[in-house]
Amino acid sequence: MTNIDEDRLRPTTEELPDDIYSEEGAIRADFLAMVGAAIADRDVLFLRQNVAKLHESELGDLLEAIQPDQRLALVKLLGADFDLTALTEVDETIRMEIVDQMPNEQIAAAIGDLDSDDAVYILEDLDKEDREEILAQLPFTERVRLSRALDYPESSAGRRMQTEFVAVPPFWTIGQTIDYMREEEDLPESFTQIFVIDPTFKLLGVIDLDRILRTKRQVKIETIMRETNYPIHADMDQEEAAQLFEQYDLLSAAVVDDNGRLVGVLTIDDIVDVMQEEAEEDIMRLGGVGDEELSDSIADTSRSRVPWLLVNLVTAFMAASVIGLFDATIEQIVALAVLMPIVAGMGGNAGSQTMTVTVRALATRDLDIHNSWRIIRREAGVGLLNGVLFGILIGAVAGLWFQDPNIGGIIAAAMLINMMAAALGGIMVPLLLDKFGADPAVASAVFVTTITDIIGFFSFLGLATWWFAIS
Amino acid sequence: MTNIDEDRLRPTTEELPDDIYSEEGAIRADFLAMVGAAIADRDVLFLRQNVAKLHESELGDLLEAIQPDQRLALVKLLGADFDLTALTEVDETIRMEIVDQMPNEQIAAAIGDLDSDDAVYILEDLDKEDREEILAQLPFTERVRLSRALDYPESSAGRRMQTEFVAVPPFWTIGQTIDYMREEEDLPESFTQIFVIDPTFKLLGVIDLDRILRTKRQVKIETIMRETNYPIHADMDQEEAAQLFEQYDLLSAAVVDDNGRLVGVLTIDDIVDVMQEEAEEDIMRLGGVGDEELSDSIADTSRSRVPWLLVNLVTAFMAASVIGLFDATIEQIVALAVLMPIVAGMGGNAGSQTMTVTVRALATRDLDIHNSWRIIRREAGVGLLNGVLFGILIGAVAGLWFQDPNIGGIIAAAMLINMMAAALGGIMVPLLLDKFGADPAVASAVFVTTITDIIGFFSFLGLATWWFAIS
Repeated sequence: MTNIDEDRLRPTTEELPDDIYSEEGAIRADFLAMVGAAIADRDVLFLRQNVAKLHESELGDLLEAIQPDQRLALVKLLGADFDLTALTEVDETIRMEIVDQMPNEQIAAAIGDLDSDDAVYILEDLDKEDREEILAQLPFTERVRLSRALDYPESSAGRRMQTEFVAVPPFWTIGQTIDYMREEEDLPESFTQIFVIDPTFKLLGVIDLDRILRTKRQVKIETIMRETNYPIHADMDQEEAAQLFEQYDLLSAAVVDDNGRLVGVLTIDDIVDVMQEEAEEDIMRLGGVGDEELSDSIADTSRSRVPWLLVNLVTAFMAASVIGLFDATIEQIVALAVLMPIVAGMGGNAGSQTMTVTVRALATRDLDIHNSWRIIRREAGVGLLNGVLFGILIGAVAGLWFQDPNIGGIIAAAMLINMMAAALGGIMVPLLLDKFGADPAVASAVFVTTITDIIGFFSFLGLATWWFAIS
Repeated sequence: MTNIDEDRLRPTTEELPDDIYSEEGAIRADFLAMVGAAIADRDVLFLRQNVAKLHESELGDLLEAIQPDQRLALVKLLGADFDLTALTEVDETIRMEIVDQMPNEQIAAAIGDLDSDDAVYILEDLDKEDREEILAQLPFTERVRLSRALDYPESSAGRRMQTEFVAVPPFWTIGQTIDYMREEEDLPESFTQIFVIDPTFKLLGVIDLDRILRTKRQVKIETIMRETNYPIHADMDQEEAAQLFEQYDLLSAAVVDDNGRLVGVLTIDDIVDVMQEEAEEDIMRLGGVGDEELSDSIADTSRSRVPWLLVNLVTAFMAASVIGLFDATIEQIVALAVLMPIVAGMGGNAGSQTMTVTVRALATRDLDIHNSWRIIRREAGVGLLNGVLFGILIGAVAGLWFQDPNIGGIIAAAMLINMMAAALGGIMVPLLLDKFGADPAVASAVFVTTITDIIGFFSFLGLATWWFAIS
C-alpha cells in the first residue's frame, strides 16, 4: 500500500530511540510524528512492531498525546495487538470515547486477557447494555468473576480487587505448595503472597512468598501462616482500604465477603492510584474545581466550574452589601475605598493558610479530638501575632500614604480583627464541616473567604464611621 | 510503687480493646488515659505489655497523641522495648524532640535492629556530632552501609533505599537459590524480588519471588531472570524514582551506583511516602503554606507564614494604588466602590480554578508541549463563555440594585474582561513558571490574584470613568 519512498521516512525498529520520552517527561515529538504518519498510512507492520510492544502506561500516554481523531484509528489498526490495559491509564473522557466506538466483539476478545481489576475498571464505565453484551461473550467462570466484582458498590474494595489469587489448604506442606505452583498453569500473572483457606473458602491466614522460600519443604502451611490482622471487607470504601495499606505498609491484602470467605485480593498498585486520586481530589476541591479532566470540552469545563462561581457570586454580593451600608462614609473619605480591599484580601490569604493546613490535617487524620483544642489555640495565637505584626505594618504605610494617622490607626485595628477572624474561621469552618459529615475540602474556601470579606469590610468601614463620627 | 487501688483503674491486657482506634480514626480516649496513667505511675509492666507490642505506626500515632512531656518519659520507660521505627511515623518536630534527648547509647543499641532505610531516616535528622557518635558504636558492616546511604544527597534514591537485599550469581539453579534462602540467617525482613549480580556486584537482572516458586529446581537463574528496564541510580531524585514506580507499577527496584553496581533496593512503601509528601507539598504551597507541621509552635508557624503574607501585602498595595487612580470617580459614584470587589473577587476565583487544574496537570505530567496550546485555547474559551454568562448575570443584578443601566453595562463589560484575564493568567503563569524552572505551585497563586485584582479594578473603574466622562 505504501510506496518505498514513504517508507524511507520512517526509521526501522533498530533506528528508533530507546526511550519514547524526552528529558521533560513528554513523549518525544519525533516518535509522535512517526506514529502519526504510520496511522495515516495505515502502516500496521510499523505500529505492531513499535507501538504494540510499549508498556501499557506508555501506550496510555501515547493515546493521550496523539490527535483525538487518530486514537480510534490506532486502536482499530492494532486490532488484537492492542493492549486494552492501556485504557486504564488514560483520562476517563478518552477511555469512554474509545470504548464506546470499539466493537463489543473486540472488547470481549481482549478483556479475557486482562487481570480482573483492569477488566472491571473498563467495564464499569460502559452503559449497561454494552456491558451485558460483552459479559455474555465471555467464558462462564470469567463472567461470574467479573459480574461479582461489578455487583459491589462503586469505589469499594470489591470493585478494585483482583479475583485471581493463589489459595491453599492449611494442611499442605511447603513442598506441596511449591509443587502446586510449579505445575499449575492458571496462576495470577504476579503475586506476592498466598492465602490459606478452608474448604468453604473461609480465609484462615496468609503467607508472604519470602516466608515460603525460607521454610523447609516438610513444614506445614498452618504452622507458618499468620492471621490477617487487616481483612478488608468487599464493601469497604477504597479510601479506607488505602488508609490500612498506608498505615501497615501492606503490599496486598485479602478481600472477604459477609461470611469471611476470600473473594479477591487488593494490591498496592491499585491502592497507589486510589491515594493519588484522593490527593488530587483535595487539591481540586480546594481550588474550587470539580471532577473535570484535561480532555474535557469547553462546554463541559465551563459547566463544571459554574456552580462554584455562582456560590462565590452570592457571597460577593453579600460582601458588597456590607460596603453599601457605609456608602455615606466612603463618599466623605475615598481613601477608605482604596484601602478596604487590603484588609479583606490579607484576611482572605491568612484564612486560606490556616484552612489549607486544617483540611490536610483532617484528611491525613493528623487532626483529631485529642489535639484540636491545642491547634485551635495555636491558630488563634498565630492570628493574634500576625495580626499585630501586619496591623502595625499596614497602619504605618496607609497612615503615611494618606497623611492621616487616624486612617493608619483604623486600618491597623481592622487588620488585627480580621486576622483573628481569619485564623478562627480557617480552623473552625473545616472542623465543623467535618464534624457534620461534609467534605471540608469542598466548601471551606467559600465560607472562609465570606467570613474574611464581610468581617474585613465591616470592621474597617464600621470603625472608620464610628471614629470620624465621634472625633 | 503503685498501690493496689490505682492498679484497679487499669484493666488487664485481656480487658483492653482490640483496636486502639475509635470509629473516627483517632486513638481511643480510654486507651490514651490508661497509657497516660501508666506513664505517670512508671508502670513499666503495663507499658511493655500494651504499648511495646503496638505496630510501629500505631506507636507513632500514640506518641503524637499523648502530652508532649509524656513522650520522652514513655520512650525512657520502654527502654530497649521501644521500637525506634515508630519515630519514622511521627512529625519531624516530634522526632527531633525525642531523638535529641534520647541517650546516644540507646539509639545506637536500637538502630542496629532497624532496616537501613528507617535507620537513615532517623540518623539524617541528627546533628553531625551525634550521628558520628552513634555510627561509631555500630558493628563495622552496619556502619559502612549506613554511612554510604548517608553520603548520597538528601531526597535521593540512595537516601531512601534499603541496603539489605538478596543477590545471587546467574549460574545458580533455582534449587540452589531456594536452599540458600532456607539456610541463610541474615536475610532482609521481607522482600519481593531477588537480584542477580556478577562477582563485582554489577547488576545483571532481577527475578520476582513468584517466578522462582513457579520454576523447577534444576532451572538456571540466568534463564529466567529479566533485565531491569528501570534501574534507578542512587543519585536520582526520589520524586523521579516515584514516577517510575507509578508508571510501571513496580513493587521494588534495584538501586545502582555510578559503575552499575547494586547498592540497595527501593521499595514501594517508601515510595508511597514520597508520593504522599509530594501531593501534600503541592496542596500546602497552593494554600500559601510552607513546610510547617501540626506540632510546630505559634512562633514557628507565624514565621513560616509571614513571607507569603508579605508578598501578598505588596500586591494588595499595588491593587489599592490602582483604585487610588480613580478616587475622583469613586467620590462621585460610590456605587463603584461597593461593586468593585465583586469584579476582582470573581476573577480571582475563576483564575484560581484554572490555575489549580494547570498546576496539577503539570505535576502529574499530563500537561506538556503536545497539548498546552489546546489547553490554552480551551481555557480562553471557558473564560469567554463564563465571562459572558457572569457578565450578564452580574450586570443585571447590579443595574437593578443601583437602578442604573450604565452601571450594569459597565460591570458586565469589566467582568468579561477580567474573566478572560483570569483564564489566561491562570494557565500562562504556571506554564511560564514551570518553563523557567520554578515550582508553579509556590508562586502561581500570588501572580494570578495580582493579575485579576489589578485588571478587575482597572477595567471596572477605568471603563466607568471613561463612560461617565463621555456621557
